[in-house]
Amino acid sequence: MNAIPPGRAQLRSRRVNLDTGRENVVVISRRSTALRPDLFRGFSRVELRSGSKTQLATVLLTDDDGLVGPDQLGMAEPAFRRFGQPAGTYIAVTPAPSPPSLDAVRAKIQGKTLEAPEIGAIVDDLVHYRYSDMEIAAFLVSSANFMTSGELIALTEAMARAGTQLRWNTKTVVDKHCIGGIPGNRTSMIVVPIVAAHGLTIPKTSSRAITSPAGTADTMEVLARVDLSVEAMKEVVASCNGCLAWGGHVNLSPADDILIGVERPLALDTHEQMVASIMSKKLAAGSTHLLIDLPVGPNAKLTTASQAMRLRKLFQFVGDRFGLVVEVVTTDGRQPIGRGIGPALEAQDVMAVLANEPQAPRDLREKSLRLAAHLLEHDPDLRGGTGYARASELLESGAALRQMVKIIEAQGPAPSASKIGTLTIDVCAERDGVVAAIDCLRLNRLARTAGAPLDKGAGIKLYKKIGDRVEQGEPLYRIHAFEPSAFDLAVGMAQLDSAYRIEPQAGAAP
Amino acid sequence: MNAIPPGRAQLRSRRVNLDTGRENVVVISRRSTALRPDLFRGFSRVELRSGSKTQLATVLLTDDDGLVGPDQLGMAEPAFRRFGQPAGTYIAVTPAPSPPSLDAVRAKIQGKTLEAPEIGAIVDDLVHYRYSDMEIAAFLVSSANFMTSGELIALTEAMARAGTQLRWNTKTVVDKHCIGGIPGNRTSMIVVPIVAAHGLTIPKTSSRAITSPAGTADTMEVLARVDLSVEAMKEVVASCNGCLAWGGHVNLSPADDILIGVERPLALDTHEQMVASIMSKKLAAGSTHLLIDLPVGPNAKLTTASQAMRLRKLFQFVGDRFGLVVEVVTTDGRQPIGRGIGPALEAQDVMAVLANEPQAPRDLREKSLRLAAHLLEHDPDLRGGTGYARASELLESGAALRQMVKIIEAQGPAPSASKIGTLTIDVCAERDGVVAAIDCLRLNRLARTAGAPLDKGAGIKLYKKIGDRVEQGEPLYRIHAFEPSAFDLAVGMAQLDSAYRIEPQAGAAP
Repeated sequence: MNAIPPGRAQLRSRRVNLDTGRENVVVISRRSTALRPDLFRGFSRVELRSGSKTQLATVLLTDDDGLVGPDQLGMAEPAFRRFGQPAGTYIAVTPAPSPPSLDAVRAKIQGKTLEAPEIGAIVDDLVHYRYSDMEIAAFLVSSANFMTSGELIALTEAMARAGTQLRWNTKTVVDKHCIGGIPGNRTSMIVVPIVAAHGLTIPKTSSRAITSPAGTADTMEVLARVDLSVEAMKEVVASCNGCLAWGGHVNLSPADDILIGVERPLALDTHEQMVASIMSKKLAAGSTHLLIDLPVGPNAKLTTASQAMRLRKLFQFVGDRFGLVVEVVTTDGRQPIGRGIGPALEAQDVMAVLANEPQAPRDLREKSLRLAAHLLEHDPDLRGGTGYARASELLESGAALRQMVKIIEAQGPAPSASKIGTLTIDVCAERDGVVAAIDCLRLNRLARTAGAPLDKGAGIKLYKKIGDRVEQGEPLYRIHAFEPSAFDLAVGMAQLDSAYRIEPQAGAAP
Repeated sequence: MNAIPPGRAQLRSRRVNLDTGRENVVVISRRSTALRPDLFRGFSRVELRSGSKTQLATVLLTDDDGLVGPDQLGMAEPAFRRFGQPAGTYIAVTPAPSPPSLDAVRAKIQGKTLEAPEIGAIVDDLVHYRYSDMEIAAFLVSSANFMTSGELIALTEAMARAGTQLRWNTKTVVDKHCIGGIPGNRTSMIVVPIVAAHGLTIPKTSSRAITSPAGTADTMEVLARVDLSVEAMKEVVASCNGCLAWGGHVNLSPADDILIGVERPLALDTHEQMVASIMSKKLAAGSTHLLIDLPVGPNAKLTTASQAMRLRKLFQFVGDRFGLVVEVVTTDGRQPIGRGIGPALEAQDVMAVLANEPQAPRDLREKSLRLAAHLLEHDPDLRGGTGYARASELLESGAALRQMVKIIEAQGPAPSASKIGTLTIDVCAERDGVVAAIDCLRLNRLARTAGAPLDKGAGIKLYKKIGDRVEQGEPLYRIHAFEPSAFDLAVGMAQLDSAYRIEPQAGAAP
């Protein structure tokens, strides 16, 4: 245990009801008995110490004794929770040096290639909340422009090792992942029951929406509980061969969660960081065979085939280095998949496909069968090339639906019943013609404005897809919401731009 | 005036006693009547609007109605002050897009060269507090690795135009600047009275210490008031030909103040950003002839002559582009200048030199005369090559001291009397020998630990310099402090490492 520097008083901790997100923040009195305020001009950082427990935090100052007195240390909620000591604990507070691994970030900024131990130290400091937001941004930007293949491998490995590492008793553990961006693309919820019904192990973890109207975890939560512990997840997989759990709850890649929190507001989205993020989670999840879905389209994350090829090669390169079999498929990312956008509306699509309802969206069904077929081919006992037929058989026979019901029952009931939003309006075609394009980004924003994913029943139900003929005044889609203010905003947004481009029929005069 | 989006309620502003530094921060209830909390997962940013007044801010959430109720907008002090509206104002709060100029930062990250209008937009957003800390870090890091000469010019110009621009009635306005890093290097306080006594205009603005134990503004503040308004500064210069004011108070380069706030914690210090920072301030200050002091030494900012040459060329290049005559001198940066480190101890050195006291530090006197000589040569009426003789004459005759007294009287009295720290200890040589090296960084840290610059009388008084012979037990320097805890810490630090390297006498056995 380190000694407290002589002459430094300790402060008594006190919770401050402030949610400061991923950053550890403490509030200190400008007249604090323990701190020299000259050390804290503007934002600065301190090290907190109690026994062997240490933590770095950013300092805010106050003159309000009611908030934090001179002998107190105000801890914002995340800092208090992470420090894990009761209120009233005496905590030594000293000016914090920046984390030593920041030297490696500075070297990278100057053009140096980083070694694996340096990257390991950065990830270790990240997951222990030793980096401020501006330091995280410096790391991300320093490697956004250029990252060697060695750095990519080292980053992936360090991130995979930083959190929970799941291991399974079967030789083959299949997994799928889509890089995202396409509304309604809930194939996992169909692929998992098909593959599990066949008998392959597929312990799927998914994310919640960050900037989209629904993540697979949000949509699955309409049907079942998704915040499973590692133990609960293992039990579900033991009994059902698969699960559909929220990855955030099992802490698969805490470094990734922290990096994403800065990547999103900065809208940084480089291929290398995407590959490190996805592959680290899959390695931590214990997958042996991974199928990657890369949608390509004018509003998708990938807009050209050459971008998709470069990304595919990065995934394969990293997979090869870690002995993870990676298969990459390029899919149609021009428009939403299925009809629903938003958790409850998407869950309806999924259950309609599993139940073989005649009105079930065909594109969601076909894409899911295609992806499931790729995964089934990893079964050595399946005759080569029969994956698609086997997947169709499992879906059409009702085996996939029964498997999904079994998974839902094993995961436990959904935290609350999800009705579809009761405030509705149909957005209609302004002219006769054919749907030529659908702006996925705009539909995502519209569904979010209507309340998704927090209001699970809010969102959009599509009636028309690309290539469909429409007449003037015919509904293109319906907006669903609960909250009047959100509904009004979404309606106004749709009136401004419906996100649909309708062109005169082919052959007709322009 | 922009309309408030339909359905968005407004919040009543309330001051929250929190100092959040340069970042605008607001606190919103998790049950706010006006905000959808799903828009604010983790840290996020909002736009505040009241009439035509708008401002971006980072959001913290709270559940504590006593702090901020559901219909209130808690504004941390800096955000409240900058918004400039009374508490209780109704303010519309909407999710904020990131500032448009951030697209240029993203392009720069991807390797694009920025155009002058893009850089102008970035600087404009910076000085209007539209960038979060992580966005500022992204900008700095994106241009830390590589900046074209065109980008450097554009950044310098945009920064120079973003704040106060001083203009003077004389054709020649001389100025000097040191890039810093050397303790005790207070030549400006001797150069300004010499040059002003000669009759040249030298309206000197200086900075306060950020990471050092004293800036020229801190040391001058021992003798006189330094937080002069633009009008007061002009009056002092009109009557005395020169002044020694704090640049921060006249807002000469607000963009630089904001960038430095992020550069320092990240310890980013690239030559291009240093040149843009210094030259923008000198252009804004209306200087026509600038002398730059580049100390070179093992612990200085520049460690080799080739680094100094590259930096000199950058200064000259930018000077030429803006018609500012730049002269660059390389100086000895191996050890502190003078004997005092810390505002009051340094002020003693300065006044001893000006008063021609026999014990005045010779190195400070010689360096100041040399720098003053360079500036005096800009007087067309002075015979070429006689600058040094003229500077010596002004110093030895007492004209410089009289000019300094006049400047001090014109600027007004110091805010408080500064005594020298009364807790003292002598740090002594542990062996016989010769002082071979002095670690400037360590002495800076030691003086800061003792309490400088906040305790103006705290710091270090040096007895020995490089080349001096010492005997075991002979004092190397004295530490001065007021506060026992700071004193204890500084003593402990000096005992660990005195910052002096003493080697056996030349010729003696090792």
